[in-house]
Amino acid sequence: MSKRIAVVLAGSGRSDGREIHESVSVLVHLSRKGWAYRCFAPDAPQAEVVNHATDTIEAGATRHMLAESARISRGDITPLERLDAAGFDALVIPGGFGAAKNLCDFASRGAACTVRSDVSRAVKAFHAAAKPIGLCCIAPIIAARVLGSASGGPGCTITLGGESGAAAAARAMGATHQECSVTQACVDRVNKLVTTPAYMHDARPHEVFDGIGAMVDQMGSLMGV
Amino acid sequence: MSKRIAVVLAGSGRSDGREIHESVSVLVHLSRKGWAYRCFAPDAPQAEVVNHATDTIEAGATRHMLAESARISRGDITPLERLDAAGFDALVIPGGFGAAKNLCDFASRGAACTVRSDVSRAVKAFHAAAKPIGLCCIAPIIAARVLGSASGGPGCTITLGGESGAAAAARAMGATHQECSVTQACVDRVNKLVTTPAYMHDARPHEVFDGIGAMVDQMGSLMGV
Repeated sequence: MSKRIAVVLAGSGRSDGREIHESVSVLVHLSRKGWAYRCFAPDAPQAEVVNHATDTIEAGATRHMLAESARISRGDITPLERLDAAGFDALVIPGGFGAAKNLCDFASRGAACTVRSDVSRAVKAFHAAAKPIGLCCIAPIIAARVLGSASGGPGCTITLGGESGAAAAARAMGATHQECSVTQACVDRVNKLVTTPAYMHDARPHEVFDGIGAMVDQMGSLMGV
Repeated sequence: MSKRIAVVLAGSGRSDGREIHESVSVLVHLSRKGWAYRCFAPDAPQAEVVNHATDTIEAGATRHMLAESARISRGDITPLERLDAAGFDALVIPGGFGAAKNLCDFASRGAACTVRSDVSRAVKAFHAAAKPIGLCCIAPIIAARVLGSASGGPGCTITLGGESGAAAAARAMGATHQECSVTQACVDRVNKLVTTPAYMHDARPHEVFDGIGAMVDQMGSLMGV
């Protein structure tokens, strides 16, 4: 049975936006399932612009998350504030350092981070509707913040790969961290959260692709397809 | 046996650079083969910058092919002028409209197009060494220009998908055009050219992924692995 999936992007590039390999892997796997997807992004500037060849911040440069995300979605992009969980069966948030800079401020504030209101609203809406949420790489930290017990949430289980400062921060937010290999996915059946570490590991592109395939498969199981 | 593959990028985004789904599909398939790859891009500005959300040219904006391509390659990128065919077993040029704007000027000049000298040098070097060249989407037009009989080359067989103005232009350049579905690849065994139409068709991401997989498989056959 076909499903409708909302994908949240936030720029295009691992250091200031969405990790491109992860985002494309998500779209390829959703496409192969025969599920329809729609891409969303905040209608706002990126936190910063990074020259990915030199790994330096371009001072004074501005790029817009909606326009940059449209590079990954091939033009079809909707402002995140218009996302209505009622119209979709599941939510996916790919990773990339931009998830920790643009969707929340984990990159600068760690366990004291806050999440953009349009992002936390989306996560809460899909969670409340018992619809699966898939997150890759560093993006599961968003679930830890929004659903963790430190924020008054129910607590949740996520993976960020191996043991790390990020895993410790997730625990500080009231989430349980589960170690996971790059080609597998961690499933929290109570909260219908599916997470995979992707480039949290020093991985090869096809391993990241396969891990995201495992995540999408597990989301399908949670949807009964 | 492991192989070393040179991948030529030229920006990041279908309308002004490299088609992102195609580029990532290339890297995932090369990675799965266990082949090493290195990404190259011209050390020069893009022909233009397009807002992919609104599909409009951003007048006065400048982006650099090397820095933008590094978004796809995750930082590791080498100026194209440094590409030495002797160090590699094969060449891949993914597609995207940027291939017709940045690597050659086919988008504006059609069958009268010219190809950047660093690109034509690379194509000629791999061809002369009888090493496979894989091209996706509109990028095969570069092979038609460089190797077609109208340029004094040997002629070659490529696909650009179905019959189209681009296919007619390829014929005008002295290439043979072969129709091909999105999930298959066209093989010119004489010239060791492997081409797949990708988003020249109105295709789904997983179909493009599979067509590029077929291209990489055929390149492997030509390399005897």
